[in-house]
Amino acid sequence: MIKPFLRVASPQDARRVLRGFSRLDSEDVAIDGALFRVLSEPIRASEDTPAFNRSTMDGFAVRASDTFGAGESSPALCRVVGEVLMGELVDITLRRGEAVRIWTGGGLPSDADAVVMVEHTEEVDRDTIEILKAVAPFDNVVRRGEDFKAGDTLVGVGHRLRPQDLGLLAAMGRSSVKVFRRPAVAVISSGDEIVPIDQVPPSGCMRDVNRHTIHASVIEAHAVPVWVGIAPDRLDVLAATIDHGLGSADMVIVSGGSSMGSRDYVIEAIQAYDDSEILIHGVSVSPGKPLILARVGSKPVVGLPGHPASALVCFEQFVVPLIRRLGGEDVVNPFLRPTVTARLTRNHPSREGRMDFVRVRLQGEGHAITATPVLGKSGMISAMVRAHGYICIQEDCEGLYRGDHVTVNLFSNWIEEHLEKEYLSGHEVARGSSGDLFESSRQEKLSRV
Amino acid sequence: MIKPFLRVASPQDARRVLRGFSRLDSEDVAIDGALFRVLSEPIRASEDTPAFNRSTMDGFAVRASDTFGAGESSPALCRVVGEVLMGELVDITLRRGEAVRIWTGGGLPSDADAVVMVEHTEEVDRDTIEILKAVAPFDNVVRRGEDFKAGDTLVGVGHRLRPQDLGLLAAMGRSSVKVFRRPAVAVISSGDEIVPIDQVPPSGCMRDVNRHTIHASVIEAHAVPVWVGIAPDRLDVLAATIDHGLGSADMVIVSGGSSMGSRDYVIEAIQAYDDSEILIHGVSVSPGKPLILARVGSKPVVGLPGHPASALVCFEQFVVPLIRRLGGEDVVNPFLRPTVTARLTRNHPSREGRMDFVRVRLQGEGHAITATPVLGKSGMISAMVRAHGYICIQEDCEGLYRGDHVTVNLFSNWIEEHLEKEYLSGHEVARGSSGDLFESSRQEKLSRV
Repeated sequence: MIKPFLRVASPQDARRVLRGFSRLDSEDVAIDGALFRVLSEPIRASEDTPAFNRSTMDGFAVRASDTFGAGESSPALCRVVGEVLMGELVDITLRRGEAVRIWTGGGLPSDADAVVMVEHTEEVDRDTIEILKAVAPFDNVVRRGEDFKAGDTLVGVGHRLRPQDLGLLAAMGRSSVKVFRRPAVAVISSGDEIVPIDQVPPSGCMRDVNRHTIHASVIEAHAVPVWVGIAPDRLDVLAATIDHGLGSADMVIVSGGSSMGSRDYVIEAIQAYDDSEILIHGVSVSPGKPLILARVGSKPVVGLPGHPASALVCFEQFVVPLIRRLGGEDVVNPFLRPTVTARLTRNHPSREGRMDFVRVRLQGEGHAITATPVLGKSGMISAMVRAHGYICIQEDCEGLYRGDHVTVNLFSNWIEEHLEKEYLSGHEVARGSSGDLFESSRQEKLSRV
Repeated sequence: MIKPFLRVASPQDARRVLRGFSRLDSEDVAIDGALFRVLSEPIRASEDTPAFNRSTMDGFAVRASDTFGAGESSPALCRVVGEVLMGELVDITLRRGEAVRIWTGGGLPSDADAVVMVEHTEEVDRDTIEILKAVAPFDNVVRRGEDFKAGDTLVGVGHRLRPQDLGLLAAMGRSSVKVFRRPAVAVISSGDEIVPIDQVPPSGCMRDVNRHTIHASVIEAHAVPVWVGIAPDRLDVLAATIDHGLGSADMVIVSGGSSMGSRDYVIEAIQAYDDSEILIHGVSVSPGKPLILARVGSKPVVGLPGHPASALVCFEQFVVPLIRRLGGEDVVNPFLRPTVTARLTRNHPSREGRMDFVRVRLQGEGHAITATPVLGKSGMISAMVRAHGYICIQEDCEGLYRGDHVTVNLFSNWIEEHLEKEYLSGHEVARGSSGDLFESSRQEKLSRV
């Protein structure tokens, strides 16, 4: 009756296996829909930007040499011979001692080579200014092609697009961009005891939590969830459900089957395919040990533990990296999370040779933050909800002591709520006289809005 | 010709002003569409969870007292009188010395009070097991209501929903949830020199970058962008465009108008409303000083600088907090970003009394990371694309020295690319013999997939 112990892989081994999977194909998308998508083509500049010498200040375009030696006590006089209207290039030939009004973003006349900030000028009369500070050639000017030159490679393949990258595409007149397809992830819940959430669970049954947490986690990982269904602990039905998932998505996740019997069905269902392979069965992480990582053809099939909290840990550590790999990024790590340093409030043992993910709840104590392990059993849902983040205890560590400083990976922005309260209370004491900036009546008016 | 200097507010003052705005109304959404939405109702448990004493292990349900004193050398004998099938509650009355097979998640017979893990048992014959380790009452069991009890408040108003929170709702059979409406943000670009990206800009003009970077940033902040249009530097058109924005959204963002003249039009357009107020005109941050923060009725109107990089800094520092405020969160901070500590490669001066946001590019040097300020002029687009993140220099700091350790707020997961390469190169050296886990032929097979 002793069941065979799992031959577990290290998390590093599991990550290495993920590298065996290939990127998906790519598609064209409009730039306004391309946020967080992954580039499948390098972005090359198609033209010099800016296309003209451009002022970075409001002021006067001048020939810099006319200002040399100018200062508060020895201003340079210039005759104002025109104005650069925004959106137009002025057709003026600037002669010695002449200046042209210009605004931020305006194009310099071709014979001007610098801009004097308006703050450093004094109006003498309608047509004459004094320049109170010398400028060097190209002061307050972005030169043609200084931002980037035609042909420059600006962003490479595998880069996840940020708002500024989309701005770059916009600047180049690109309204669409080639990106890797987002992985479609088939989601299956398994277990005889699992019922849909709109049913009242009969005795011994429970509602399907994983369907919804995994759905959300797939979205958080910028992939596309495809719900397949709940499979009971029967090999034929589970196999058919996995087959349906393989047909409708780029990878399949089966949660549940964390009890030995049903986990075996997942293995059996995968092995029934000719071109299939169980790559990992068991990883030395806690929670999450019974992870299954397999392939059917080129598609990954992942078996996650049935406990919702364990499933989420495994998802973050192994499914997010897999999604990133399929989705064209050249990394197999979880996404970085915001972190905060906190002091542990109690000892926490860990087993050597196993990577432990410990959920913690944070508390503010003055300007310090403490982290308390959330000790709920792994099947408990409230434990994962009460947690603000998690700490990772490496394999070579036997545990942490009360008072140790730990790095907490935050699930959300809890820390801000804390800082916010700190700020507010500190603010009332330290800056009570700030009413000089806004009349109190204004404040009242606004708060009545 | 000296233009009036702005009377600038501190970033703290600006944040305080944001508190004057009120949360939007709320709506019901399906839980599968509720990720990152903000709760407008507290989540209270409607029933005890779990609804029955549940096993957390595969093994045998027993009366704990039957195992007291059991050990490897003195096992306790038990008769196996049945099995708890998943999804069913077994109708067995456990007598002294009896055990029932049970799986993870299974419901205990009402008179069993603990579970012995299968690993701690030995099969003697079909109906008899030896128990090799004693269990205490409720070992390996989650008791009814231990996760949460009917009536418990589990998550409060203003909380941004994470995957695990949606799991909690699912566990309670809730298919929808009440959340604050996502703020609709009207986006306007202003300036005579701005043309849509599908046009070749005439001399002196440039393509509308901000429309697209702000669109993406609004999405990143979990709000809904509403494009209104490009307004030239004419008061009547700008006022009509802002009015259109106010009619179609919860707040309005006008980018551009960073030159003095057009900025004044934004102010004038706002002041033309009876119930309006300029709350902030200028903030002591760099880049971003000419920020305008106003209200028309209860709706915020924000004027962002025209330079794309400056506009993004202001967006993160002041618009994200405003979106969070309108969207029901009780904080007025930017979202936390992942951070990394890096060593500055050169001195960087800063003006006291001003908060400086310095974009940096990171580089890996062995296991250390260096940060180099990206020195592009503020109008340059490539500078914001080249940056991996930014550092913040506080108002009371006159600058940073080469070699100083700085905290870099990351725009994306650059650091992982670096770690990944480190891992790979380190891996080849340190773990070259890992082939014992997976045969090399398997690896090759997978890479051919």
